[in-house]
Amino acid sequence: MLYSIPMRISELGEFGLISLVQEWTRDANDSPWGSFSDAYRLTVDNGDDAAAATFLSAPVTELYTTDTMVDGIHFTAATTPWRDLGWKAIASNISDVAAMGGESAVALITLGLPPETRVSDIRDLYAGMTAICREYGARIVGGDMVRSPTAFITVALTGITKQDPMLRTSAAPGHRIAVSGPVGGSAGGLRVMLNPPGSSGAATETLIERHRRPRPHIAEGRILAAAGVRSAMDVSDGLADDLGKLCTASGVAATLWAGNIPAEPALQEVFPTDWLDLALYGGEDYVLLFTAPPATMDAAIRQLPPGAAVVGEITHGQPGTISVLNPDGSSRPRGGAGWDHFTG
Amino acid sequence: MLYSIPMRISELGEFGLISLVQEWTRDANDSPWGSFSDAYRLTVDNGDDAAAATFLSAPVTELYTTDTMVDGIHFTAATTPWRDLGWKAIASNISDVAAMGGESAVALITLGLPPETRVSDIRDLYAGMTAICREYGARIVGGDMVRSPTAFITVALTGITKQDPMLRTSAAPGHRIAVSGPVGGSAGGLRVMLNPPGSSGAATETLIERHRRPRPHIAEGRILAAAGVRSAMDVSDGLADDLGKLCTASGVAATLWAGNIPAEPALQEVFPTDWLDLALYGGEDYVLLFTAPPATMDAAIRQLPPGAAVVGEITHGQPGTISVLNPDGSSRPRGGAGWDHFTG
Repeated sequence: MLYSIPMRISELGEFGLISLVQEWTRDANDSPWGSFSDAYRLTVDNGDDAAAATFLSAPVTELYTTDTMVDGIHFTAATTPWRDLGWKAIASNISDVAAMGGESAVALITLGLPPETRVSDIRDLYAGMTAICREYGARIVGGDMVRSPTAFITVALTGITKQDPMLRTSAAPGHRIAVSGPVGGSAGGLRVMLNPPGSSGAATETLIERHRRPRPHIAEGRILAAAGVRSAMDVSDGLADDLGKLCTASGVAATLWAGNIPAEPALQEVFPTDWLDLALYGGEDYVLLFTAPPATMDAAIRQLPPGAAVVGEITHGQPGTISVLNPDGSSRPRGGAGWDHFTG
Repeated sequence: MLYSIPMRISELGEFGLISLVQEWTRDANDSPWGSFSDAYRLTVDNGDDAAAATFLSAPVTELYTTDTMVDGIHFTAATTPWRDLGWKAIASNISDVAAMGGESAVALITLGLPPETRVSDIRDLYAGMTAICREYGARIVGGDMVRSPTAFITVALTGITKQDPMLRTSAAPGHRIAVSGPVGGSAGGLRVMLNPPGSSGAATETLIERHRRPRPHIAEGRILAAAGVRSAMDVSDGLADDLGKLCTASGVAATLWAGNIPAEPALQEVFPTDWLDLALYGGEDYVLLFTAPPATMDAAIRQLPPGAAVVGEITHGQPGTISVLNPDGSSRPRGGAGWDHFTG
């Protein structure tokens, strides 16, 4: 790929940079894998929710993912208490493992901290991390703590599965598209905190809880993989944007049926006019987005807990193009902007 | 452990904070390990160079480690070009795997970058990372790139071994202490760059190369584990300080024989008066520090490449206490200070 020097990464954007990195690393990954090439085979490389390697001597595939949150960029003390930050930092990684159909296993925690950080805040951070690890059977086995003028938390997580991982690259025209639960709640909770409504109540509390304590869909992911679903990712940047990424990876387009998109009653109550935009474009819900042929989809959806819904279909077309249709068949214009880590 | 709130982490120090974190995570790790408790057993928890889990259905142990470098704290553009930064960020992790006796396998790369970062710098960074990965058979399979006012790079690496990992907790009185190669070269190289000597030449170039392109001792680690060595760590913070950590972990003390400590001719040439202090207290050499009973040690040392040397012995005494003896038997006073990530 051509690029002028000294181009800044802000001009290139996150996804342009990711493409370059994939190119830069691809060749190196073709080299022999030490004396343990008999132990592992890399089955999913850069670019999916997680990478995967299969142990040749055991019927298991291991998954690898990492996710970072930076103070002032991905969180602020005002909207995310330390305990919830710990929960969320692990949750986003567990969700990547869920999207592959696996279970979480081993976590490494890296903290960059200013020296004036309070010990009690770090205690709260670990309380949140250990709470979600207990619930999801993950283990914090190590990490690194370093001084940094900017606070950040990086979690690296392995997962494990005995089934073939679900991929972003497996969607095909004719597939139905579904989500494993309601979307928009987390974005609604963030908006409630940034612009508190006149009255608060159970509905606003529910949305704040969705933002602060997302619950990754590990059980749902295992059900889907067992039901024969081969194409999935998690919803972290918003349903429409993440579907665009899945479609780009698979070389397909998609239509979303706005009238079918599941949102919680709380979201519709607190945001009676905006709820569908929040459901379409809000992020951090950590439900699963998946596609499958109609018969597989019917069988899979029946096995999921309530809240899952078919929301559209994969089509031929310019890869990554998402059309949103209103219930009357009219086209719904784009109501929000995607998030880019470097230009956004 | 008692601590007053709001104590700052700078008052507690890195190792005080690490102790608290180990306490906070220990209980959570006793919880059941999802439905895959039949697949894994956690064999080395927090506190060693790497954590380890054994696959019950396969004769392999997997290792997990992570290490972070922050701009202005662990590196500066002046002393570490981007390409070398990439090499070093991976090298410190490979060295942790070497210290356990393993081989490196799967790497996840997280970059925190200011938007004004040049794309060409990131290209150079990846060139350094893929160069060392090729040489050591590791693979970059994924990662995360985020905006951050402070640049940082976090590498998480898995390793693999078919032997029992070497541990920091296995040193015992009567063991000989050895290093797998010369020490002090990296610190010498850093000093040369920060305070350039009047004349430069092959010796200063050698030292700069030691600082910028450390070569982890993977082959040496495998030889040691196969030779029956059970106690090892890598030298990242300096020989004397790292030996102190190993002794603390094992509940023993140690004597270092200053006259036996191997240093490169280049270090002695460029720093004729200070070379031994650099060898004792300089960091980032990434050789292995290991201990074993005399007979095991003799056999192990014979199999290592030239440069390895016995440098002392493990003793009874206040855990973590290191005495340095001059060749005439006199005690050598401490010549340097340890590095603490939060107070230092």
